[in-house]
Amino acid sequence: MSKNTSGYIRSLAEKSRKAARIISSLESKLKDTAILKMAEYLETDTDELIIENQKDLIAGKEKGLSSALLDRLQLTPQRIEGMATALREIAALRDPVGEVVAQWKRPAGFEVGQVRIPLGVVGIIYESRPNVTADASGLCFKAGNATLLRGGSEAINSNLAIVSRIRKALMDTGVSPDAVQIVETTDRAAIGHLLRLHEWVDLIIPRGGKSLIKRVTEESTIPVIKHYEGICHVYVQQEADLEMALRIAVNAKVQRPATCNAMETLLVDSGVAREFLPMLADEFKKHGVKIYGCDKTSLHIEVNKVATEEDYRTEYLGMICNVRVVEDMEEAIDHIAEFGSRHTDVIVTDSYQAAHRFVAKVDSSSVMVNASSRLADGGVYGLGAEIGISTDKLHAYGPMGIKELTTKKFVVWGNGTLRV
Amino acid sequence: MSKNTSGYIRSLAEKSRKAARIISSLESKLKDTAILKMAEYLETDTDELIIENQKDLIAGKEKGLSSALLDRLQLTPQRIEGMATALREIAALRDPVGEVVAQWKRPAGFEVGQVRIPLGVVGIIYESRPNVTADASGLCFKAGNATLLRGGSEAINSNLAIVSRIRKALMDTGVSPDAVQIVETTDRAAIGHLLRLHEWVDLIIPRGGKSLIKRVTEESTIPVIKHYEGICHVYVQQEADLEMALRIAVNAKVQRPATCNAMETLLVDSGVAREFLPMLADEFKKHGVKIYGCDKTSLHIEVNKVATEEDYRTEYLGMICNVRVVEDMEEAIDHIAEFGSRHTDVIVTDSYQAAHRFVAKVDSSSVMVNASSRLADGGVYGLGAEIGISTDKLHAYGPMGIKELTTKKFVVWGNGTLRV
Repeated sequence: MSKNTSGYIRSLAEKSRKAARIISSLESKLKDTAILKMAEYLETDTDELIIENQKDLIAGKEKGLSSALLDRLQLTPQRIEGMATALREIAALRDPVGEVVAQWKRPAGFEVGQVRIPLGVVGIIYESRPNVTADASGLCFKAGNATLLRGGSEAINSNLAIVSRIRKALMDTGVSPDAVQIVETTDRAAIGHLLRLHEWVDLIIPRGGKSLIKRVTEESTIPVIKHYEGICHVYVQQEADLEMALRIAVNAKVQRPATCNAMETLLVDSGVAREFLPMLADEFKKHGVKIYGCDKTSLHIEVNKVATEEDYRTEYLGMICNVRVVEDMEEAIDHIAEFGSRHTDVIVTDSYQAAHRFVAKVDSSSVMVNASSRLADGGVYGLGAEIGISTDKLHAYGPMGIKELTTKKFVVWGNGTLRV
Repeated sequence: MSKNTSGYIRSLAEKSRKAARIISSLESKLKDTAILKMAEYLETDTDELIIENQKDLIAGKEKGLSSALLDRLQLTPQRIEGMATALREIAALRDPVGEVVAQWKRPAGFEVGQVRIPLGVVGIIYESRPNVTADASGLCFKAGNATLLRGGSEAINSNLAIVSRIRKALMDTGVSPDAVQIVETTDRAAIGHLLRLHEWVDLIIPRGGKSLIKRVTEESTIPVIKHYEGICHVYVQQEADLEMALRIAVNAKVQRPATCNAMETLLVDSGVAREFLPMLADEFKKHGVKIYGCDKTSLHIEVNKVATEEDYRTEYLGMICNVRVVEDMEEAIDHIAEFGSRHTDVIVTDSYQAAHRFVAKVDSSSVMVNASSRLADGGVYGLGAEIGISTDKLHAYGPMGIKELTTKKFVVWGNGTLRV
């Protein structure tokens, strides 16, 4: 069985590689036509998609999935329209392939330049949300890559239904449908086999829970770009405008607490703790945010629990916030380095020097001055559709858009030029 | 023993991480002062370095290392001066850290930019050549990274001697010497332990033979940038200037055959085979290059051996060249895709259309028109010192200079900006 799975996964990867070679130099116009057709087919087949999704929902309920998971799994006409809209936005993006990033002359008498090319075959291993199927395929395809999808078993019927529309759109446009493939078996061994096919797959992007990402990191012989957890901090510096700090803290925590760029820990400078913490406690109470505070915090306000180191390392994704009073900015920076996840960290300050120093010293993928961590997003930054937010420093760090799905090759224009 | 090794390696990595945090924001001037001191200490301690190197050479002879390996291992006053010169060139490079790559305004009322920052901790696993110890440390340090070195056991005394001079230079400049550390045990298990320390190490660069690189790729949970083999091709297209093609073929093969950018296979268009192959055979004979030819090649010239698929996949690094006659450019491109290593591939042609198509269709890290593959080199391209030539598409593809030892973080400059 697992041996059959191994052969099956390998044959998929070989087909992806073949398709990747063909689509790497497709005309932009043809790619956009195919992507627009994908959007169209998803919309016209809304009813069929919802029928397939029902199968997953029923199976999910039987397996006892949480209501939050079931909600993420569900397709509605509105969510399907959302997928179509996202695809149309991808079609409207500028094609990154072929862009000459730079070109220069060398004394030896040749020119050398760097040209953007697709990565090749991108493997996406993900859980739950079926919209990832359409978003990731569309974005990878626009960047000239073949996509090999491995969705969660809980969404298998929904994912297969979406992929069949995508492949139909490719075929109707005269493009090899193998440009987008999905692993059709739910055999868990499939992931292990996929992760060792570095000869055919150029990049693995895992999107899902910690255990999935841990497994992929440990087993993969293919380069991986992780979208790991977001333990984001807001540091209220001594010279902060406290009203602004309060607005930012509340927005960062409650605007959408289940996202990776929501704040998990608020660091308050000891010089303003006495004044700021009561303001914060009031607002958090109004919004139903529980406070896990350090010893010094509880000198000023009532806390729901004393914060432990474990708490500082926890991504709550909900209405809990750690609050810690720090002596000075150095202690805040040290806290972020020790407990943060290099996702997004914020300073609120009116001091030029403090802002400058925080930005220089914190090496998270997004470092912000006087802004809510919730702004860390490819769309908000103006990068267009994003495939996720990388917490890995290699290749892409932070919101990862279509450009990060490409690489650059060197092109040398010689005239019989030799090495001497 | 291995457990001790595990703890030892981990303590090194923790110290590297600590040092990385400090040196990530050092002033350029201070870094350059330290690098110049490294060069100075290597030169002034030339005699001591040679004494330590002798120990390695004697042990190497006893172990029966080949004369080629012994040659690579040997330090001479000239080679030590070469290391010092390379370090001075690194000091003269522009510091990439802190460069604002781009910054733009968003309608929501904030500015967002991308700023270059160090990667953090870079692990280098390498074999033989002791000069890598100085080159890699200098380049990583200049880019603000901490370096954790693991050299080959055959060069342990030489490497320790070099690193002690580098650390002395760091200390004398007031920089934590842990910015450059070397694994002092030759226990092979050390590599395995190092490769799992993704919490402290941001990148692994393996430099060495195929088996080392294979092991690192398979075991590492840390991102790896490989410098793999170079199976480089020169394709003589039908409309090539045959004199130019001959000069390029000879230069690509014989100018320095042991390098990764030397040609291993020559592809000749069937339309010019009858005229070109005898010219080639003459020149190759003069230079002592053996020809492993395809069936069609042997219709025109005498071959030393009939080329097999295995030969097409072999990096000879010596005076052997595969020669294959291809029907047309498509067959040449297919051959390169199947047997190449995505390092460097060349077309010789006078046809605009052929050049254009070859450049678009071949996705190797360097694609060249009318130039010798031997030009594929960071220095020749004008990138300054290189840490190697990446054959991985992620992060760096092709010659990898100091910029590729950094990443970019997003910086958001807000004014109380919230997500709505």
